[in-house]
Amino acid sequence: MADNSRPARPVLGQNQYGKAENRVVRITRDGATHHIKDLNVSVSLSGDMDEVHYSGSNANVLPTDTTKNTVYAFAKEYGIESAEQFGIHLARHFVTSQEPIHRARIRVEEYAWERIEHSGKGAHSFVRRGQETRLTQITYDGSTWEVVSGLKDLTVMNSTDSEFWGYVKDKYTTLPEAYDRILATEVSGRWRFNWTDDEQQTPDWDESYAQIKAHLLRAFAETYSLSLQQTLYAMATRIIDHRDEIDEVRFSLPNKHHFLVDLEPFGLKNDTADGAVYFAADRPYGLIEATVLRDGCEAKIPADLTNL
Amino acid sequence: MADNSRPARPVLGQNQYGKAENRVVRITRDGATHHIKDLNVSVSLSGDMDEVHYSGSNANVLPTDTTKNTVYAFAKEYGIESAEQFGIHLARHFVTSQEPIHRARIRVEEYAWERIEHSGKGAHSFVRRGQETRLTQITYDGSTWEVVSGLKDLTVMNSTDSEFWGYVKDKYTTLPEAYDRILATEVSGRWRFNWTDDEQQTPDWDESYAQIKAHLLRAFAETYSLSLQQTLYAMATRIIDHRDEIDEVRFSLPNKHHFLVDLEPFGLKNDTADGAVYFAADRPYGLIEATVLRDGCEAKIPADLTNL
Amino acid sequence: MADNSRPARPVLGQNQYGKAENRVVRITRDGATHHIKDLNVSVSLSGDMDEVHYSGSNANVLPTDTTKNTVYAFAKEYGIESAEQFGIHLARHFVTSQEPIHRARIRVEEYAWERIEHSGKGAHSFVRRGQETRLTQITYDGSTWEVVSGLKDLTVMNSTDSEFWGYVKDKYTTLPEAYDRILATEVSGRWRFNWTDDEQQTPDWDESYAQIKAHLLRAFAETYSLSLQQTLYAMATRIIDHRDEIDEVRFSLPNKHHFLVDLEPFGLKNDTADGAVYFAADRPYGLIEATVLRDGCEAKIPADLTNL
Amino acid sequence: MADNSRPARPVLGQNQYGKAENRVVRITRDGATHHIKDLNVSVSLSGDMDEVHYSGSNANVLPTDTTKNTVYAFAKEYGIESAEQFGIHLARHFVTSQEPIHRARIRVEEYAWERIEHSGKGAHSFVRRGQETRLTQITYDGSTWEVVSGLKDLTVMNSTDSEFWGYVKDKYTTLPEAYDRILATEVSGRWRFNWTDDEQQTPDWDESYAQIKAHLLRAFAETYSLSLQQTLYAMATRIIDHRDEIDEVRFSLPNKHHFLVDLEPFGLKNDTADGAVYFAADRPYGLIEATVLRDGCEAKIPADLTNL
Repeated sequence: MADNSRPARPVLGQNQYGKAENRVVRITRDGATHHIKDLNVSVSLSGDMDEVHYSGSNANVLPTDTTKNTVYAFAKEYGIESAEQFGIHLARHFVTSQEPIHRARIRVEEYAWERIEHSGKGAHSFVRRGQETRLTQITYDGSTWEVVSGLKDLTVMNSTDSEFWGYVKDKYTTLPEAYDRILATEVSGRWRFNWTDDEQQTPDWDESYAQIKAHLLRAFAETYSLSLQQTLYAMATRIIDHRDEIDEVRFSLPNKHHFLVDLEPFGLKNDTADGAVYFAADRPYGLIEATVLRDGCEAKIPADLTNL
Repeated sequence: MADNSRPARPVLGQNQYGKAENRVVRITRDGATHHIKDLNVSVSLSGDMDEVHYSGSNANVLPTDTTKNTVYAFAKEYGIESAEQFGIHLARHFVTSQEPIHRARIRVEEYAWERIEHSGKGAHSFVRRGQETRLTQITYDGSTWEVVSGLKDLTVMNSTDSEFWGYVKDKYTTLPEAYDRILATEVSGRWRFNWTDDEQQTPDWDESYAQIKAHLLRAFAETYSLSLQQTLYAMATRIIDHRDEIDEVRFSLPNKHHFLVDLEPFGLKNDTADGAVYFAADRPYGLIEATVLRDGCEAKIPADLTNL
Repeated sequence: MADNSRPARPVLGQNQYGKAENRVVRITRDGATHHIKDLNVSVSLSGDMDEVHYSGSNANVLPTDTTKNTVYAFAKEYGIESAEQFGIHLARHFVTSQEPIHRARIRVEEYAWERIEHSGKGAHSFVRRGQETRLTQITYDGSTWEVVSGLKDLTVMNSTDSEFWGYVKDKYTTLPEAYDRILATEVSGRWRFNWTDDEQQTPDWDESYAQIKAHLLRAFAETYSLSLQQTLYAMATRIIDHRDEIDEVRFSLPNKHHFLVDLEPFGLKNDTADGAVYFAADRPYGLIEATVLRDGCEAKIPADLTNL
Repeated sequence: MADNSRPARPVLGQNQYGKAENRVVRITRDGATHHIKDLNVSVSLSGDMDEVHYSGSNANVLPTDTTKNTVYAFAKEYGIESAEQFGIHLARHFVTSQEPIHRARIRVEEYAWERIEHSGKGAHSFVRRGQETRLTQITYDGSTWEVVSGLKDLTVMNSTDSEFWGYVKDKYTTLPEAYDRILATEVSGRWRFNWTDDEQQTPDWDESYAQIKAHLLRAFAETYSLSLQQTLYAMATRIIDHRDEIDEVRFSLPNKHHFLVDLEPFGLKNDTADGAVYFAADRPYGLIEATVLRDGCEAKIPADLTNL
């Protein structure tokens, strides 16, 4: 065992533990018509956990294995109405059933499936949509809820209506101004609900998700863009303006560069007119990140959605 | 330089080289309506290349950088009608323009985009579909063509109508028989066209792809499955039976296991009736691979679509 | 352009931008003996950036392309003494040379190479070590420095001297207590230096890294573990106790489960004695995260090193 | 069930099945000193399997779950002397114990660990080396063995002693000749043993692996390279010349391009002299692949080690 007898031993700060990435699939049957919920659920618990760090005493520790079992048992016993509702149910259980646990944070990734159209006997055949991954994070401290939902891996492109000029030029600037460029990004977004306590009516989580995704896509499409920052702000603003349940939005938007290829050495003109040819670059990429808040609201989503 | 003066020096066998993973995006404009082609093109050339291996003489070597330039220049000059047509064009160029090159193989991955519905001025906004990746491989030796197309990363699931029983039992067998299970797989498929020479009319490559994808999905959905092998054979057979242009199909199908979670310790019954809860496992996974051939045809697709 | 004329428009919160993942390799020559620095550098700038979000005006925006150029130019002009020193140099430049930029954050990943032993003419042949990735993050606001360094992907295992028992048991607990188990984790760690201003002597960054890595490995190896939390605390404590330059340490430690395989159905006893056979699981995994602080110091490293 | 009653139904070609990626870890104890074997084992069986494809009859099918159980049971019962020996043991078992199985192919990935130096009570603490992954593939048809071993993910670099000039120039060639460049690649290699039958003495598998890795590294380091093909041939030749047990070698070598950054716009000269700065590119990359054979031997390793 580590020697913990030193004077002024180092102090434990924020800590959390739990079982991550529990892959749970639930099939409900409505006669011959089936429905899928396909989730990846991560549990993270905090509380009166000093001793397990200092001496290895597990007296206050609910095993991570138990948190896994709870995910599966709850999926059976209570069903999965939505990722958010399921997370709320789990978080409440851990905080209220175990005295040493003061905070639970449940993260969920959800994968969407669509039906295979076929002439079979029943509707029980599916193909994974494969587009974005839906996300939610539920945090509960026994009195207040924080629900942040979002998505990742949603790749979008405007093939025109994007410019970039009028920027600062210093001695290291070589970039030519662009008056017609491709704007493409892989959207990683998070939005925080203003639902925080059990007295309030909960939002319709699935409807909220569908509408927010539609709004951000539309704002991306409809914004004539002078900078990716402007597009980001337009996307976030449209969500806040149209969805009363959301007070804060954060986006992390890599600028997926598409460079016009120089084909002059081959006697070919390659401008942005019809038939333009681009090289889609991997790295490096611009990375634009910002929070947008409903007027008067406080920021709570952490700045780093993406880690290096 | 390496010492190549030994008697009976080792002999060069099959070799090939070229530039891999050229990411090319082409935007065509039909007034305000734009169209995207988004490809990942890999060039691989073979021929009279002994000297570059033995002595480092590059006298017969067209640089891989040149093969990259050619991909981009051809995309501009001749357009990209389909992945297959583009690959054919490139392969013909390398073999016919460079005497030392006796064979060209072009591989293409294609990523699909769909339009974002919006009220904007034009139709130039897209979201990546994100489902399967379309594939093709064109091989040309100056006289004969081999075109193998396919797809990967298409994840499908039947939530019932799958059984597994009546198998061999040896001393290491513990698996209970299953009379109602989930059958899920991530389809990796390849199909070989019987178009081999310039005298024949080429298939409609895009229509062929769309139809084959539809057929394999339907066969997956409609097959009451006693084994994943049976489903595989049904998928391949349906393609060969409905698509005259295809003589050979190979599938590599990981059995993405979904295990019913044992919830008895918690007093919960978890059978396959309504509301069943499954653990979606990562590894290990069953892996089922087979070639299916039109009667009388020869196999040419290599057995290993997936490497460890 | 987005309509920004609404009353009480949403408010811009924390925002940052820059070029991410600039892959820079620098070779220095000491006669025939060469040295490699192999970095992945990400720049993130904040400041007076409201207008670019609200109206798309880039008047305050130094292009991300310029930040990339600066990375490469500085690598040439000033060299790369260490990841930390290079990041400090870059951060200082951005903040001091551009009035609208109030904060710069530079993140660096560093990949280690070792020499290939050979009988050649010079020492210019290398093989990538491939073990952990070294990390640093430099943040500068024009007056105060924050340097957080770390590592990721360092996988370690104790094949014994780990127990887990005495934990809370609720109705969802089925885990048997363990008195001899494998303890394995993939270390992701961060440590914050107490160097914060230019008046202080900077640490010897490379020596500090080497010593901290050695200390955390030793603490992992020498701790007889009753919980992964206890091991985590021992690792962090050893760093703080031995390295005066560090005030805060955070670890994110996935518990890479190795389960004893039940071989009783085959008449084989598989306990932890000689020759034990384990199944190395992927998901789910326990995830243990904590900050440890020098007594009296404040926590500044964000809690989420790992995102779902 | 699929309708299999058509005349001239499609014909089953090469097929194989089994459990892939069984992650098995075995700890042996030599007093307080422990040893790890850490493998990823994939089983693939072929034989009299027509009916399972045509009708779904599993009468000849040993379940993939059983093949998994066998891997773990054999690891316990017989130990893991080396990846090759373990694969041979498994392959022999499947072919000889089940009449319908005519061929078994076992693939193994092996991960290397090294000891953490420490002052603890015993030697049971390890850190994963993290460099290359060792590979082997054993194929057995009841009479003849084919053993192909290899490695992947071994990244090497020569910072000088590489040139590229004298190549073919066509209208798409723009590459300037290079007289001093970085040569870097991520080695993927396979080598076939001439051990094929039980009457022959088996090689010392571990010694063979260690020597071959050393030879290929040395050949990479010592070859003054006029092309990556020449380096490839030198690496393969050195193995064949020094290792009597090997008759065939195949390498797949991506040319990991490092481009000198153009710093002239910033008044900086960036040539290959001391302090050169390079951009390490991701895609596209050159890809050089070749087989080299002992004089008089036949090629058996498939050409495509890497799939798109």
